[in-house]
Amino acid sequence: MGEFELIARYFTRPVPATAPDAPGTAGRVVLGVGDDCALLAPAPGMQLAVSSDMLVEGRHFFADVAPERLGHKALAVNLSDLAACGARPLAFTLALALPEADEDWLAGFARGLFALADAHGCALVGGDTTQGPRNLCITVLGEVPAGQALLRSGARPGDDVYVSGTLGDAALALAALQGRLPAHWRLPGAVLAAARARLELPTPRVALGLALRGVASSAIDVSDGLLGDLGHILRASGVGACIDCSVTTPLIAAYAELSSVRGQFGSEFDPATDGEFLRRYTLAGGDDYELLFTAAPAQRVAVAAAALSSATPVTRIGRIEAQPGLRLIDAQGQPVAARYASFDHFAPHACTKAEKPE
Amino acid sequence: MGEFELIARYFTRPVPATAPDAPGTAGRVVLGVGDDCALLAPAPGMQLAVSSDMLVEGRHFFADVAPERLGHKALAVNLSDLAACGARPLAFTLALALPEADEDWLAGFARGLFALADAHGCALVGGDTTQGPRNLCITVLGEVPAGQALLRSGARPGDDVYVSGTLGDAALALAALQGRLPAHWRLPGAVLAAARARLELPTPRVALGLALRGVASSAIDVSDGLLGDLGHILRASGVGACIDCSVTTPLIAAYAELSSVRGQFGSEFDPATDGEFLRRYTLAGGDDYELLFTAAPAQRVAVAAAALSSATPVTRIGRIEAQPGLRLIDAQGQPVAARYASFDHFAPHACTKAEKPE
Repeated sequence: MGEFELIARYFTRPVPATAPDAPGTAGRVVLGVGDDCALLAPAPGMQLAVSSDMLVEGRHFFADVAPERLGHKALAVNLSDLAACGARPLAFTLALALPEADEDWLAGFARGLFALADAHGCALVGGDTTQGPRNLCITVLGEVPAGQALLRSGARPGDDVYVSGTLGDAALALAALQGRLPAHWRLPGAVLAAARARLELPTPRVALGLALRGVASSAIDVSDGLLGDLGHILRASGVGACIDCSVTTPLIAAYAELSSVRGQFGSEFDPATDGEFLRRYTLAGGDDYELLFTAAPAQRVAVAAAALSSATPVTRIGRIEAQPGLRLIDAQGQPVAARYASFDHFAPHACTKAEKPE
Repeated sequence: MGEFELIARYFTRPVPATAPDAPGTAGRVVLGVGDDCALLAPAPGMQLAVSSDMLVEGRHFFADVAPERLGHKALAVNLSDLAACGARPLAFTLALALPEADEDWLAGFARGLFALADAHGCALVGGDTTQGPRNLCITVLGEVPAGQALLRSGARPGDDVYVSGTLGDAALALAALQGRLPAHWRLPGAVLAAARARLELPTPRVALGLALRGVASSAIDVSDGLLGDLGHILRASGVGACIDCSVTTPLIAAYAELSSVRGQFGSEFDPATDGEFLRRYTLAGGDDYELLFTAAPAQRVAVAAAALSSATPVTRIGRIEAQPGLRLIDAQGQPVAARYASFDHFAPHACTKAEKPE
């Protein structure tokens, strides 16, 4: 199968009908796949949000991951960036390097990719295919009314800090797949499968991002770990924050399994090591693709309404402070001394000092 | 050096001042590198042209190519797609997988990249860096007045067929670098260096593309070889074409050297093989990044004016015909029987039958 036939068979489709939850983007795609460029017609008063992410085999996904899940994830991590800006998905391009044109793999990949794209009314409008080590690069385009984009720079002292959904399950799944879980963590298969689904099928919080326009003062998506990404907000906003670990730690979906039924650990449970593991996963795990955002206390009802209307759980985890730096506290309000490094592609060993973002 | 420091050091710059030849795009970039998304504000009445290209080491460039040239080429091949649509460059994203963060390499790459970007007033607004086999993925965004984009589908019977600049020199250089040139082609070093510059430093024909708005009936950029890319126009337009090889063959810049001074070949010159080599390079060489376009005969003066105003040589090489298919003729008007395959990333051996595009 040649390059052009491959594109025709797997990646050329009519522009999808606008999804029910994405009114208003119909007609924006003037020309899709098949010419030198795609053509988009942004609506008057709209700004275009643009983001690119590259996924490399062995780095961002395992060679044997189900292609359908990989198709989902490649787009999901990009839609997550749009969500963090409060932008509505419009279109995307896909550049794909593959060692060979494996039809089964391509069919599965396209299935996962388009299922998510269609759910968000986001049209594939162009791209590139080439032979090479497996690499997926997606650029996503969305729209947001001028001046309403959620930025990293808007957090103010006194703002509440929130995170959506759950944290740490993707990192837990990765550790399990790599055989790094403590031997006495006898997690049921169903719990591990659910965690793995969080790793391989992340949910971009697009609806929540849209609902937070005019409500949140700043936002970012959690891709490299909660504390590292919060550090980006703190730096961009010139503020500090205090985060309550007794609130964030239970946000790992496996928490109930791990802690409420003490039998899971039995007498082997060690707060100093097991508790620390859980805290590390939730604070610095990475691959969560939840929204981390801030909002003034006066917006608490509005935040709750946004969570409700988007059917997305949201948890208040701390507060923005004028004093620079990031402080962690436990249930008793005592400082947590540990340091958590976020994920960095070129310096896996502690590049970002989460406690000292400046 | 970590990922964030790498981005900060080499890829975060103020949005460039609008280039002298790119009036009108200033102020379109509302937010550049550093948030979850970049924000663009398209001008009223403008459509957005979008294109992505991925370059893989060992496939699109040699591992030891000068990084400055690679930075140029990675953006140039994308700008060439905008040129083929008659779109004005606005912004681009860069996703970069690198085996390691080599500072010398990055500095050179950034230098070449930004020199070309600045020349076109095209701002780097976002992207991604990661560890992996070397891979460069650029998505470029341009703008074009609604309804004025040059498409592949507009060629009509009777239209003239044109190509800009020179053809085949990039393929000649590639053959030389791979030791595939006939032994008796004793080309001077300066000629080979010039051909190599065509391979490694292609010139995107942006100014010509802009000048051809309202003049050309269809356009495409020549990346996979003249005949293969002409095939795309013929298919999209539902027409055929006749191309005069006695006009296209001399378009290889090395032609004068190779043919006018017979001494280069001496008595060894064999029209059947040497002439065929030249024809193959110019018709199906690839990596030319020239504009191939059609225009009604009534537009000949306008085409000449577009060429003049953009300081880009343009040559009329044939005519669009109602009869489907692609016919090649020689200086005597006799059919050329040879078949030329264009470049295909997944089927290097003759996937596109240039003579039978349907």
